[in-house]
Amino acid sequence: MNKEDLDYLISSVTAIPDFPKKGIIFRDITSLIEDPRAFSLAVDWMAERFSGRGYDKIMAAEARGFIFGAALAARIGAGVVMVRKPGKLPRAVVSREYNLEYGSSILECHRDSVKSGNRVLLVDDLLATGGTAVAMLELARSLGAEVTEACFAICLSDLPGRKALKDLGVESHCLIEFEGE
Amino acid sequence: MNKEDLDYLISSVTAIPDFPKKGIIFRDITSLIEDPRAFSLAVDWMAERFSGRGYDKIMAAEARGFIFGAALAARIGAGVVMVRKPGKLPRAVVSREYNLEYGSSILECHRDSVKSGNRVLLVDDLLATGGTAVAMLELARSLGAEVTEACFAICLSDLPGRKALKDLGVESHCLIEFEGE
Repeated sequence: MNKEDLDYLISSVTAIPDFPKKGIIFRDITSLIEDPRAFSLAVDWMAERFSGRGYDKIMAAEARGFIFGAALAARIGAGVVMVRKPGKLPRAVVSREYNLEYGSSILECHRDSVKSGNRVLLVDDLLATGGTAVAMLELARSLGAEVTEACFAICLSDLPGRKALKDLGVESHCLIEFEGE
Repeated sequence: MNKEDLDYLISSVTAIPDFPKKGIIFRDITSLIEDPRAFSLAVDWMAERFSGRGYDKIMAAEARGFIFGAALAARIGAGVVMVRKPGKLPRAVVSREYNLEYGSSILECHRDSVKSGNRVLLVDDLLATGGTAVAMLELARSLGAEVTEACFAICLSDLPGRKALKDLGVESHCLIEFEGE
């Protein structure tokens, strides 16, 4: 992506200082998604990177991850596996507990959403500590999927998410990186 | 869409009888979304219908609506306006109370997500009584948007959603229609 487009993308993310607590800058991706040019730039960048790579499924985390996951899946001809909080999926599920920056929670996906040997790409809006992404990875691998790559709209590069995924054999692709928080 | 493709799409929706109560067949769209062929057929049908129509924004309802809304937005070059439950959006919002089939709730979108005069397409996974869609319509129009069309993956044609929207000047486009529940 050229510098002008990347600058435009970065400027489309709203910085909300001291949220959810003092000293943290919350990176609000919703303003990027709402902007037709920024959203197109983001999805085009992802589609160029992952088209023709044989991905069967995109696994995307509730709820902002659905936005990038579904847009990308439609571009590369993959299905979308929704990873959701407990009780929201109608059929039999597999579950994983995971750590958030501010607590812990459980994520689920349908047991029949991924077949053994499927190539699965992990997608979310934000990579921070990596708790959500690692939970998705464990869900996918527990169902027999091959997972070697993950894609994020924003990576907070001072936080350990990218390294946590790398240690588990997954390369992270980050559209925008922010440092210093 | 030809009959073979439509039959495939219909068969990709899981029927869950007597859920959430006896006599109701719950139409589970997640199996369609997970299926690469079915998801592509669905998004292609929507993109063909709404490409080149000058839509600035797609307004999509949390959370399954995000899947179709984002995939379609990326195909037609629109932004995505997320319509969410209270407290989930980080900036200033507008709100509408709405009736569900089994209760009532509140939906919100960002106040700055739609500009006056924007052409907005409403998207959700399912049209039943129309409560969610009418709330989205009111949110969009309260911000000055032009709204004349809505798009759904499934319409339950015995329920009054389509007529409710039509009475408000909005035509519904339904990928799959189910009757008799």
